[in-house]
Amino acid sequence: MTEEQVKKAIRDIPDFPSKGILFKDLTTAFKEPSCMKWFENELYKRYKDKGITKIVGIESRGFVVAPILGNRLNIGFVPMRKKGKLPAETVEISYSKEYGIDTIELHKDSLTTDDIILIHDDLLATGGTMIAACKLAKKFNVKKIYVNFLVELDFLDGRKGFDEDIEIDSLLHF
Amino acid sequence: MTEEQVKKAIRDIPDFPSKGILFKDLTTAFKEPSCMKWFENELYKRYKDKGITKIVGIESRGFVVAPILGNRLNIGFVPMRKKGKLPAETVEISYSKEYGIDTIELHKDSLTTDDIILIHDDLLATGGTMIAACKLAKKFNVKKIYVNFLVELDFLDGRKGFDEDIEIDSLLHF
Repeated sequence: MTEEQVKKAIRDIPDFPSKGILFKDLTTAFKEPSCMKWFENELYKRYKDKGITKIVGIESRGFVVAPILGNRLNIGFVPMRKKGKLPAETVEISYSKEYGIDTIELHKDSLTTDDIILIHDDLLATGGTMIAACKLAKKFNVKKIYVNFLVELDFLDGRKGFDEDIEIDSLLHF
Repeated sequence: MTEEQVKKAIRDIPDFPSKGILFKDLTTAFKEPSCMKWFENELYKRYKDKGITKIVGIESRGFVVAPILGNRLNIGFVPMRKKGKLPAETVEISYSKEYGIDTIELHKDSLTTDDIILIHDDLLATGGTMIAACKLAKKFNVKKIYVNFLVELDFLDGRKGFDEDIEIDSLLHF
């Protein structure tokens, strides 16, 4: 499988979720075993020597590929979820979205000051959710934060809002 | 890792999501690498010889472990999502929950009549969502449906509502 073949397996959906947006639909890649293996192997190559101790996936599309890398690296998986979904004590952060305020949470016992974490989501557009996710992780005083996306939409310049100490990487660029 | 050790890693949360319910919180197991490996290896043992061609995960806790098995078996991953989340043409089913009606969807091009599928979710309680998930999969005339849970709450007798041709299995029982 080549990078170009994986890119072709991703489907364009015009006007989703709203008029004027060209949505990158990864489900057509997820159902192809060779694309899923490519995601796994690429992530493993990029992160195997970083000393990462936990992988955090953002609900819910970030849950699909993050745990695969977690098991390959033999590290734990931590879900970052929308407000009210995690059952134990949480730390939360709110952030503005196009149509109002969203809140995401981590369990209070999910990360420690010894952790080097990778936060993963499927796609970087304007970056709002991931920037909030990094701020939330920083409340735990983790040692280092890496950020990864399967797909980055370069023309939206989503990287510009991140703190400089965050290392960002994406497998595929459009 | 033994079955008993994995069971002990699952946390009990009283009165979540509502009064009187003892919630089984799997996040404490997900953050333990040895528990995640145990899930992967147990699932692989149970399903490697069934000829499964696609693994379907139910949003969103069913997304965590299903794709790991998918990559181990070298088959594709198909997300079953709540209404309005899948961007292309879908097939849907609605079902009654305690507080109203829920609708779940699959992409129209996600399954074919040649597929032998495994539908996975984290926990079997009364079974409402998974019974609907099986009915939805049957609309695609797939060859065979297997159903798997990480955890089954035996005292709720959730298996009783399933059609007889569905093969149900759970890794852990409480």
